[in-house]
Parts: sequence; structure tokens; C-alpha cells
Amino acid sequence: MKVEIWSDIICPFCYIGKRRFEAGLQAFAHRDQVKVVYRSFQLDPTIAIHPDKHLFEIAAAKEGTSTEVMAKVSRDIAERAKQDGLLFNYDTVKHTNTMDAHRLSHFAMEYGKEEAVLELLYKAYFTDSLHIGEHETLLSLAEQAGLDHQETVDMLLDSKRYLTAVKEDQLAAKRLGVRGVPYFLINNRYAISGAQPVGAFIQALEAAWKEVSSSQKDEDSDMCSDGIC
Amino acid sequence: MKVEIWSDIICPFCYIGKRRFEAGLQAFAHRDQVKVVYRSFQLDPTIAIHPDKHLFEIAAAKEGTSTEVMAKVSRDIAERAKQDGLLFNYDTVKHTNTMDAHRLSHFAMEYGKEEAVLELLYKAYFTDSLHIGEHETLLSLAEQAGLDHQETVDMLLDSKRYLTAVKEDQLAAKRLGVRGVPYFLINNRYAISGAQPVGAFIQALEAAWKEVSSSQKDEDSDMCSDGIC
Repeated sequence: MKVEIWSDIICPFCYIGKRRFEAGLQAFAHRDQVKVVYRSFQLDPTIAIHPDKHLFEIAAAKEGTSTEVMAKVSRDIAERAKQDGLLFNYDTVKHTNTMDAHRLSHFAMEYGKEEAVLELLYKAYFTDSLHIGEHETLLSLAEQAGLDHQETVDMLLDSKRYLTAVKEDQLAAKRLGVRGVPYFLINNRYAISGAQPVGAFIQALEAAWKEVSSSQKDEDSDMCSDGIC
Repeated sequence: MKVEIWSDIICPFCYIGKRRFEAGLQAFAHRDQVKVVYRSFQLDPTIAIHPDKHLFEIAAAKEGTSTEVMAKVSRDIAERAKQDGLLFNYDTVKHTNTMDAHRLSHFAMEYGKEEAVLELLYKAYFTDSLHIGEHETLLSLAEQAGLDHQETVDMLLDSKRYLTAVKEDQLAAKRLGVRGVPYFLINNRYAISGAQPVGAFIQALEAAWKEVSSSQKDEDSDMCSDGIC
């Protein structure tokens, strides 16, 4: 089975949803047969790497409200994140453009290290208030994940590799009608939108598994897929 | 709620699946709030309008088996169709290219008559052994559905209208990873593949409804959809 997960590093519910999905997967009997594929989704592809305002101000302007309200909303989210074992330090967060972070994640995929990189990226952004738009930070996280220093330098600094891959992920989401992230898609068919409770992930995994394992034969015989039927 | 249904006129399980979906929809309490959108899917876009062989021979060549085997398979499908109240006359079927039939269905959509046209097309092909690749047949069916004679002539004979629409439907299916038809997609999210039992359609409609009506608010608050979250 394949689970595709669209997410953005700066998206709190993506981090929370990742934890809940992982808990659901852990409780799923056939977890060894699940392949997780991370897909990039930029909530704001236009934001600068070094915005001149704090996240609260940027968010307030977007939402047409005050920075105080956005600070309060963020604190509420941080409280909820705690229940999933995550520490969010919104006051000192370094908001930025996530394109290079996503490119790094795609690069890491070639070495099977995208999961490790994503974990480090989320923690860097939400907990440690690191600047994940800066190459220095990304390089350090890449090394922590076990990626080669020089290869990462070459990928990040001297090329635009994976730019297309990131954009293609985003387009794929658009085609699927994705309205927000996180967005989980199991076997191209079962979709879960948002940081749903752990039980919802277990249910979806089990439903997809049931279909794949038991009704595969029936299903194939009850649909037409070649030139005639 | 929106239900998109990809199907081909020459696909037996599309006809059967249509009956079962309709039965499921009939049993669904909020059926009045369901909008059904028919999408085109050609199982074989390359076949001639007048193939020089019978369906059984074409199918046998594709499957690497004998015409006898394909005749037997078709008889089995016809037996199963009976249980859904459908009469298939495979021995005299006129296999053909369905592009113009799909174009007619798209044309009919402009008048809200696509459902009537599709019903007439299926019956013409599977029951009445009519040649649904020939404009004469299509024109007659269009008139039975209440479409204007001259407008239909203009659409079918003198233009390539809806050719792009048919191909776009097909591409959309490809993007969704559709492996065969019929393929039902509820609200861009709940997918049902194949002529599943009536209960499966009811379940899917109810699950989609539940999500739309009750968890819309929760879900939105647990996902990020604008530039920040």
C-alpha cells in the first residue's frame, strides 16, 4: 500500500498530523507493507526567505486581524500540539519560504532519508526557532540526517535541482482538489484531510487494506481496464 | 455533494455499476443534494468505428485467448447483468469507437439530458445491438432523449465539438490514477472503483455526507490552507 502525504514544514497541523498518522500506522497490523511518500506543498510559495515581519504580523495582515489575535491563535495551537508531544515556540519562530527545505527533502528521498530530514525540519522550525530558509541551517540538518556535506552543498547552492519536483507535487495536489494540508492519500483512493484523530488513520488504513487484499479479485473482475473490458 | 462517474458505453460493468449506484443513491437520505457528473473514459480510443471483426475476436486477440473463451466470458457477464435487471445480447453486439457517443453525451449535458442519453446509449449497445458509432444511430437516440435534430446534426457531423472535453475527462482520470471504469469520485475524495455492491455506494455517500455536514468545521480548523496556516 502507498500513502502519500502532502505537507508544508511551516504548517502546524502537518507536524501534528504526522505524529497522529505515525501512531495510526504503528497500530496497523500490516504496517510493514505500507510505503509512505512525502509530497511537497507550499502554503505560501511567494513569501521571502527573510520576511521583514514576524509570523504574527504577516498572519494578521492576511487574516485582517491584529497581531495579538494571531499570537493568541498560535498559543492555542501550541497548547494542542503539546497533547501530541510537540513543543511549539511560536514567539521566536523564524518564518520563511520553504522551497529549499522541500528541495532538501526531495534530495534526501534519493537516499531514503526524507523522513529523518522532515522530522529535523519540523523540530528546527517549531521547537528550536532555527531559520530553515537559510542554507547554513539546511546543511546542518542534512548532515544530522546523514547526508553528504558536499553533495548537499552542490544541491542547495549550485543548482535548482528538485525545484520542478516540488512544483509537481503542488500541482498534483491542485489536481486532486486538495484544499489544505496535511493531506493523506492511500492507494490513490482513500483521502484524509487535516490532522484527524489517530483512529481515523487506523480506520482508513484498514479500509484500504481490506480492499486491496480481499476484494482485489472481485474488484478487478467488476471493472473494465483494457481496450474491451 | 458532487459525484463524478467515469465510464465508457461499451463497458459492461459501467452499465451494471450505474444501476447499482442509482440504487444506492435512491436509498440515500440526502439524494436531493447530490449532483451527478458523468465523465468520459474510452477503454480503447484507437479502435475503428467499423472494426472488421466481432467483439469476441478483438477481445480474444487482446487477451491472447480464443474467441470461444471470450464468448464464454461475455455470456458470464450477461448472466450477472441479468441480476441487475439488464439484458446483454453479446452475440450480435456492434463493437465500435465511442468517441462520438461521448461527444453526444457532453452535448446533451448542456441541456441536462446526459443521463437520458447515456441510458439510451447503453441500451442501444448492450441490448438492442445498434451501432452507436454511426451518426444515424446517435442522431436517433439524441432525438429520443429530446435533443434538437438539427443542432445534433451540426454537433456530430459538422464539427469536432466536445472532442477536447472527452479527452480532458480521460486525462483527469489518468491524473487520479484511475485503473479502470466505472470509477466514482465523491466530493473529489471518496473513490469507488468498479461495479461495487449497492451497499458500498450507500456507505460512501453517507461517509462523504457526514464529513461535509458535521466535520467541516473541525476539519478546517485542523488543517492549513492559506499562506500561513
